[in-house]
Amino acid sequence: MTPIRTFEEMVAKLRQSCATHRIAVVCPYDEESAEAALRAMREGFAELIFVGDSMRIAAAMESAGADSRAIRIVEAADAAEAAAKAVEEVRAGRADILMKGLIGTDVYLKAILNKEHGLLPAGDVLTHLSVAQMPGYDKLLAFSDVAVIPYPTIEQRRAMLRYDIATLHRLGISKPMVALIHFTEKVNPKFPNSTDYATLVAENARGAFGEAVLGGPMDVKCACNAHSAAVKGIKSEVCGNADLLIFSNIDAGNTFYKTITQFASATVAGILQGPAVPVLLSSRSDSPESKFYSLALACINRGC
Amino acid sequence: MTPIRTFEEMVAKLRQSCATHRIAVVCPYDEESAEAALRAMREGFAELIFVGDSMRIAAAMESAGADSRAIRIVEAADAAEAAAKAVEEVRAGRADILMKGLIGTDVYLKAILNKEHGLLPAGDVLTHLSVAQMPGYDKLLAFSDVAVIPYPTIEQRRAMLRYDIATLHRLGISKPMVALIHFTEKVNPKFPNSTDYATLVAENARGAFGEAVLGGPMDVKCACNAHSAAVKGIKSEVCGNADLLIFSNIDAGNTFYKTITQFASATVAGILQGPAVPVLLSSRSDSPESKFYSLALACINRGC
Repeated sequence: MTPIRTFEEMVAKLRQSCATHRIAVVCPYDEESAEAALRAMREGFAELIFVGDSMRIAAAMESAGADSRAIRIVEAADAAEAAAKAVEEVRAGRADILMKGLIGTDVYLKAILNKEHGLLPAGDVLTHLSVAQMPGYDKLLAFSDVAVIPYPTIEQRRAMLRYDIATLHRLGISKPMVALIHFTEKVNPKFPNSTDYATLVAENARGAFGEAVLGGPMDVKCACNAHSAAVKGIKSEVCGNADLLIFSNIDAGNTFYKTITQFASATVAGILQGPAVPVLLSSRSDSPESKFYSLALACINRGC
Repeated sequence: MTPIRTFEEMVAKLRQSCATHRIAVVCPYDEESAEAALRAMREGFAELIFVGDSMRIAAAMESAGADSRAIRIVEAADAAEAAAKAVEEVRAGRADILMKGLIGTDVYLKAILNKEHGLLPAGDVLTHLSVAQMPGYDKLLAFSDVAVIPYPTIEQRRAMLRYDIATLHRLGISKPMVALIHFTEKVNPKFPNSTDYATLVAENARGAFGEAVLGGPMDVKCACNAHSAAVKGIKSEVCGNADLLIFSNIDAGNTFYKTITQFASATVAGILQGPAVPVLLSSRSDSPESKFYSLALACINRGC
């Protein structure tokens, strides 16, 4: 499979595939979510199930000029019920992907994390993966975690690496380059993430994460700029060529996300990792384009 | 005073001033440091004192085509002695500013932090301030701390705010807008920096930091983009208009620094804050331009 290097290529790949993905959208009352879901349907790779108050859904669809007959509606009285019913659609095999509309993150995640009726298998870890496309980088750049795990333990990092590397494989990147991000290249017990990184690099050398190269600790510049790494004398195949950045913590991850969207014209898609099916966790401030590419990423991540 | 909005304006301001600043450069053996210092001399706002091995200094000056008679040389056998002698130049009133050349950061800082013969007054805090100029922002954007304090305490944050706001005043920004950066806008005791931020905002409302507006917790995008803040319902004069970003920790600060230089065409200058005189802490990978603007920032920060 040719590596997917842009969101446009991702969408083209989905268009070429004969598969359609059934997407359950929780409370699709806002223009951005409705628009992104309807676009996926028009592009031919999605069937839609809108879950929520049918009056508000009808209003959203009318304002989007959508044909209501093409969409299955599941009625729910409130946001909590909508989230629970959408999760149930997935569990019953009637939907493949879960998407967030105009619903609070807490209420949405509660349904996903429900131990009896939720979507996270026991022993799995909930984490977030973002994928960026920006003029200053010649391929997609994935990064984690900007939203869910504030200060990952080494166990959580292992799970992140397993999920995220699998996603990159599904994007056709047969041997992803993974940079473990720190503010310096030195391993120092005063900064436990740097010693965790050294452990993970050693584990990867023994094949723990399959086909992937791990490098680090290194900073964002060494990960994305070979010259900068050379000046510092850092030798790793990853330098200047990263496909995935694993950040020390949510402060660094979120800063990267907000900085590239604000100052580097980046478009960013995002999905949750860990649940049994792809789950979207977009925020109100995401553009329809960003929500649409998040859906495309979720579809690709189903791996079919 | 008209606010200085670009590095070019900063240099123009120094050119117009009749003051010259005596700069002691420790081990100016590398082209970048020598070039930056010599440019400040040619621009007319600096006199130079080169401290180190006179043979290596002569070689560096010859390769830079500099007139050795214009520069005072202080001989030192090794890097540690060079740092100590340069610090002594400052303490004896023969130099105004300390600049780092080709010397390890540890050795350089050791001389500065020496309790008896150093440059940090008792009770003061050593911290780092960066100032960025980038196409995506219509004024200079200062931020801290990317290099010295990994996880600031509230006491250290108070010192950072005092120093950094004073520096912005010297740049002609009479009422700096300060954004306290976090990954969310919520104050939550699980994240002590967010509760520290709330305390600092309250202290500032009582005038603790002089002429300045403090806002936060907020993310980088709210700090620099008014529309993004409005979508989230964040109301602060700082939103979209930040002059200074105070980061949660060094991971976030360093990520911001590396990301804007890598992906947003930023030029960044930097100085240490806390010492009795301006001190530069540049890194090997900084461009001569970045080192030159750091010198300009240090000169402006002398406040004369």
